[in-house]
Amino acid sequence: MVHRFLLPLGEHIGSFAVFSSVSLRAACAALTAFLVCLVIGSGVIQRLRMLAWREKTWTESEKLTELNLRAGKEGTPTMGGMLFVLATACAALLWARLDNRMVVICLWTMLAFGVLGGWDDRIKLMGIPDPARPGKTLRGMRMLPKLVAQALIGGFAVTWAWIEMHGTAGWTQFRMPFLPEEILFAAPVFIVFGTMVMVATSNSVNLTDGLDGLAAGCGAIVIITLGTMAFIAGRSGLAASLGQVFVPGGDEVAVFLAALGGGVCGFLWWNCNPAKVFMGNTGSLALGGALGISAVCVRQEILLIVAGFAFVWEALSVILQIASFRLRGGKRIFRCAPFHHHLQFMGWPESRVVMSFWIGTVVLSVVALGMQRVL
Amino acid sequence: MVHRFLLPLGEHIGSFAVFSSVSLRAACAALTAFLVCLVIGSGVIQRLRMLAWREKTWTESEKLTELNLRAGKEGTPTMGGMLFVLATACAALLWARLDNRMVVICLWTMLAFGVLGGWDDRIKLMGIPDPARPGKTLRGMRMLPKLVAQALIGGFAVTWAWIEMHGTAGWTQFRMPFLPEEILFAAPVFIVFGTMVMVATSNSVNLTDGLDGLAAGCGAIVIITLGTMAFIAGRSGLAASLGQVFVPGGDEVAVFLAALGGGVCGFLWWNCNPAKVFMGNTGSLALGGALGISAVCVRQEILLIVAGFAFVWEALSVILQIASFRLRGGKRIFRCAPFHHHLQFMGWPESRVVMSFWIGTVVLSVVALGMQRVL
Repeated sequence: MVHRFLLPLGEHIGSFAVFSSVSLRAACAALTAFLVCLVIGSGVIQRLRMLAWREKTWTESEKLTELNLRAGKEGTPTMGGMLFVLATACAALLWARLDNRMVVICLWTMLAFGVLGGWDDRIKLMGIPDPARPGKTLRGMRMLPKLVAQALIGGFAVTWAWIEMHGTAGWTQFRMPFLPEEILFAAPVFIVFGTMVMVATSNSVNLTDGLDGLAAGCGAIVIITLGTMAFIAGRSGLAASLGQVFVPGGDEVAVFLAALGGGVCGFLWWNCNPAKVFMGNTGSLALGGALGISAVCVRQEILLIVAGFAFVWEALSVILQIASFRLRGGKRIFRCAPFHHHLQFMGWPESRVVMSFWIGTVVLSVVALGMQRVL
Repeated sequence: MVHRFLLPLGEHIGSFAVFSSVSLRAACAALTAFLVCLVIGSGVIQRLRMLAWREKTWTESEKLTELNLRAGKEGTPTMGGMLFVLATACAALLWARLDNRMVVICLWTMLAFGVLGGWDDRIKLMGIPDPARPGKTLRGMRMLPKLVAQALIGGFAVTWAWIEMHGTAGWTQFRMPFLPEEILFAAPVFIVFGTMVMVATSNSVNLTDGLDGLAAGCGAIVIITLGTMAFIAGRSGLAASLGQVFVPGGDEVAVFLAALGGGVCGFLWWNCNPAKVFMGNTGSLALGGALGISAVCVRQEILLIVAGFAFVWEALSVILQIASFRLRGGKRIFRCAPFHHHLQFMGWPESRVVMSFWIGTVVLSVVALGMQRVL
């Protein structure tokens, strides 16, 4: 938006023309979202606390409940994800070019997933009795409706992206690292594949969100990696010199990702150990959805899987645990799933688990960027 | 080195030619250094512990000593910086092109500063009685000889860089962001300026090193930022399209920085809260020296100051505190300097101080990269 008002002024005041620079706008977007989070943070947290929208830390596992209680997590307000969702939306509206459809799609998807997550959080917090477990309350939406809602939102976003972008040369081609040939995606394959990416990403981030700063920190690192690739993909000269597919307008997705990165960093300020607020499903679904749709928009799904392997691994650990429990007659693979609880059960302090995930994600981001270059 | 052995093989085995790719080698260097740190880490830490090379946490401030004791820092082995210095040296020797003089200069400088820091650490650890403070032991090298040694090593490295590079077009020009004109540096100005950068950087990182993961984490973020700019500066097409000065061979400095980044991340694995080892002056001087010389080599001194403002601010806080104490008759500005102790004294938990510095450094890195683009 700023772009729209300031650029015409650039004809009169020469120095305003700098706002045509994508990277400058990306930096401004990141800063704006970061500062918005810092400024509105304590007010929002206080409000959430007053509304008694606080995390219930009771779990099925006695040991986990004890760990949570000892870390003082009981009563920490949740749904703090709305902080970075709002900040990102403000910053992106302000600094990105809104005539770029991909930015609009990314924003819409983030907000839609955020609303879905908020709904999920509200059900958990309202304390509705659970008919399946007498004496207990509902822990959120039921599995199936939640998955269906994610698939609907994700599918809609992916279809929209296809409609806007499928005419672009190279965009429908899927590149597998280390494979010389490109795979051409037809519309249905693309939409099914993209929807799967969206559902998987949002659920994986959702599962990862369980320790102070875990999902937000890993998310911020993946956002930077993905933003770098989006920036490269969106500039023809850069894309060509680095052997990437040129995606016209992909650099505006980088502005959106910069806003998201700034917002998540600002949220991390409040969420880092000891956390003053949790992102809740509001935040984790929105973050996952935003990551998924940006990766689909600039066709960097593989990069997302490699750089975001922390999320993949957390989801895998849950699937493996359940599969092992069911198929091997009650035998477990991990002491507790998702994997971060396994490390906690092994006696790792919470901050060490989080750091290890962050460091691992940085290394995997480097690997992901290295893999791209080989192509 | 791998480059030298594998590239000739590339003539026979086609797929080996990928090792001419700088970014692939950078990724390999980062991974190698990271893994070396992880693998040799516990052995080195055990050895340091056995040699009783442990940090003495006694300080002039009673409150600080108490905070250190409460955090269980007493007896944690120090000089752990040798871990990432060794890992970086191995990885850089393996993956960088050693016919590139800047890589050799960077490596030499890191090792020289590491040795100086090790000497400083040893004096502290040997428990030599301090003639100036009866009953106390020396806390390391004296101020003046330390500064002279830093200036000598830094000056030598900068002069060497000048000799190798001054013939390169554009390299001697200094670009101030937001100023349209370039400042041409003559040899003496360049050497004095470069030496000042080296001394300032190594001392700033030295002062910042005081909380678990503080210097290493901020360092890793600045390394990534600086490495990105070095990579851009070293590729003519990329540099031109982003309006940067082309520095031939600058991309090999990026390989060195990738190795350093991987090593520092690997060290962070052991150093993050609760720390199993401290980097000591061995690590902080080596890290500062390596950052300084790489910035000088690719002429990104301003980027280093902006992205590494955490270090600058820590050093400034000490200078301001001393100046205020002397000039204003014993009045202090901060409750304790360097600044991270001020935050601790205000009641912030250690992990929150460290996180805030990390997040701030990420944001400043974005600002620094944004500023470069404006040029």
